[in-house]
Amino acid sequence: MPANADFLRTLKLQNPIIQAPLAGGGDTPELVAAVSNAGGLGFIGAGYLSPDQIAQVANSVKAKTTRPFGINLFAPSDPVSPTIPPEVAIRRVAAYFSELGLPAPAFPAGPAFSFSDQLKAALETGASAFSFTFGVLPSEAMQALKQKGIFVLGTATTVNEAIELEKAGVDAVVVQGSEAGGHRGTFQGDFSSSMIGTISLVPQVVDAVRIPVIASGGIMDGRGIAAALALGASAVQLGTAFLTCKESGIPEAYREAILNAMEDQTRITRAFSGRPARGIVNRFMTEVESNDAGEAILPFPLQNALTRPLRTAAAKNGRAEFLSLWAGQGLRMARRQSAAELVARLVVETDAVIRQLQETRSHESLPSKSGAASN
Amino acid sequence: MPANADFLRTLKLQNPIIQAPLAGGGDTPELVAAVSNAGGLGFIGAGYLSPDQIAQVANSVKAKTTRPFGINLFAPSDPVSPTIPPEVAIRRVAAYFSELGLPAPAFPAGPAFSFSDQLKAALETGASAFSFTFGVLPSEAMQALKQKGIFVLGTATTVNEAIELEKAGVDAVVVQGSEAGGHRGTFQGDFSSSMIGTISLVPQVVDAVRIPVIASGGIMDGRGIAAALALGASAVQLGTAFLTCKESGIPEAYREAILNAMEDQTRITRAFSGRPARGIVNRFMTEVESNDAGEAILPFPLQNALTRPLRTAAAKNGRAEFLSLWAGQGLRMARRQSAAELVARLVVETDAVIRQLQETRSHESLPSKSGAASN
Repeated sequence: MPANADFLRTLKLQNPIIQAPLAGGGDTPELVAAVSNAGGLGFIGAGYLSPDQIAQVANSVKAKTTRPFGINLFAPSDPVSPTIPPEVAIRRVAAYFSELGLPAPAFPAGPAFSFSDQLKAALETGASAFSFTFGVLPSEAMQALKQKGIFVLGTATTVNEAIELEKAGVDAVVVQGSEAGGHRGTFQGDFSSSMIGTISLVPQVVDAVRIPVIASGGIMDGRGIAAALALGASAVQLGTAFLTCKESGIPEAYREAILNAMEDQTRITRAFSGRPARGIVNRFMTEVESNDAGEAILPFPLQNALTRPLRTAAAKNGRAEFLSLWAGQGLRMARRQSAAELVARLVVETDAVIRQLQETRSHESLPSKSGAASN
Repeated sequence: MPANADFLRTLKLQNPIIQAPLAGGGDTPELVAAVSNAGGLGFIGAGYLSPDQIAQVANSVKAKTTRPFGINLFAPSDPVSPTIPPEVAIRRVAAYFSELGLPAPAFPAGPAFSFSDQLKAALETGASAFSFTFGVLPSEAMQALKQKGIFVLGTATTVNEAIELEKAGVDAVVVQGSEAGGHRGTFQGDFSSSMIGTISLVPQVVDAVRIPVIASGGIMDGRGIAAALALGASAVQLGTAFLTCKESGIPEAYREAILNAMEDQTRITRAFSGRPARGIVNRFMTEVESNDAGEAILPFPLQNALTRPLRTAAAKNGRAEFLSLWAGQGLRMARRQSAAELVARLVVETDAVIRQLQETRSHESLPSKSGAASN
């Protein structure tokens, strides 16, 4: 399985396969450890975790693997104020709370911990890699990570974001194509102009930066991995493919939704969290966005905190219509399997795809080359 | 250069490279013939051409090449009625007409010829391939093409569209990823749920149909071609890459816009034609869509006919702000070159990418495989 050998060596990986951080329940310690044990890089999505939880989850991962793993946080952002009267957003979702027998929704409290608290905890986990989304890290944070010898990955959705991340000193950049499930990593300009497909975005970033590029967005199998490597990526990051693995911690109703949905049944929504994210279209998304076109949605992370009790109750009750069903556009390729089976399959498939490309090339290269040369 | 050998043999191609039909001036006879002479498949975009023009353009192509070429039409659709009072749309664009010194815009007349007139002409051109967009062909049209031994390609933007085209008897399907420039080929449901990235869409279509799949959308160089072949495509179709070739007939202002634009500077618009299409954001697009959010835009082809005099005058005067600057998301990879140079470069690059994948694989396959097997 080909890849940038330096990149693999630095991170002590056997396969250029990264499990996307799946903040919100997907990436259990079992999943993270299974991916790392299979020679890939498991990632803890810790954006919503307290410092104590970060330590606990990392300890649990380390009890299951001695291989490298990564940890992901959201880049710090300025505190947000509601852009609409909070009562409007609260009123908009109240009926769903009552439908699930929950107390009326309340104005969400901010998190009880800061980014620097989280980072301090992350630095002590023994993670080999640290990735972040939604911005650029403050330089003190970058320095603290480098001093620990941690490999740092930023997340970009445009060429200019990748360039800015490289300038800030990241060791590699995860390029998020428009196909990707979950939150858009966009931090410059409007998200809608940053919806670039992976097949276009990856080579343009590769041409613009010197650091390794990790492709993400819509990659589900060995064909997608071989394609990403052909585009110049050093590795790939897969999220949706890992969500249906047996070690993933998502509710069964969410897993079923992924296994049954088609490639054209996702869209970008702000309804759950206040930040644009791709998920399978469901009742909550449709109804909250209808008519008022987002006028009843608080900015991130307020909307996320507002809807959390609803999503937690929906998970318990198997009510997919109220869950944030984050998923990418490769849905028809999702399968039920273990993470070890998935990684092994990805490696074998990628090798087979490349071997086949090479074999066809050998058979056809003479006529093809003379065709080109005759002009 | 690898590809489905059967597909190449059937169409007598040396390279699995199709020049996308570029209705509206891009695909001059010089461009079409140059692509075919280079061992690819040049295509005449004849959707807006009269039967006489179809015959003339095809004769001009045949004077320049003896190699196979293709012709593209829009699938026939029911006549449309204005969805808004036509005066609203006319008033919305009137100031631009006056800015260019044109007579006031008028309610557009329908075309003076029918699809079956166009098809009759196309059948007599000697084209080896026929492709269509925006729907499925009537069965009489399919039969007429097959009787002539013409290879028929439909255009799909979702898996279900590809399945419907296969059922209708097409010989191959062009899969249009969300990255693609120009009009969306979507003919089932809303275009916005059909914005699937190429890296996700191609393998899902390949899994669902038995006919060859041609990948299009965001492919600009050998990396993109190798990626498409890895995804399971038998060939690729490139539009934007050919638009900046010297044989292309687009106005210089349009060519300059492509060469200077970045990957995040296109979006989908209905402002020019009434049908969703991807182009470089410019003044006309922004202004016509602002505030009234499309409420002043006629359905296709009425809006297209309404804005045609404006676009024609803008082309003459080098006013890119009034041109429909159709382009895909791979813009940073566009270059000034001849079509022969482009095709030759694509062939060499694709081979190099595949060779490199294969070489890295050979070096790393043992550790990588043992890593997978150890689980």
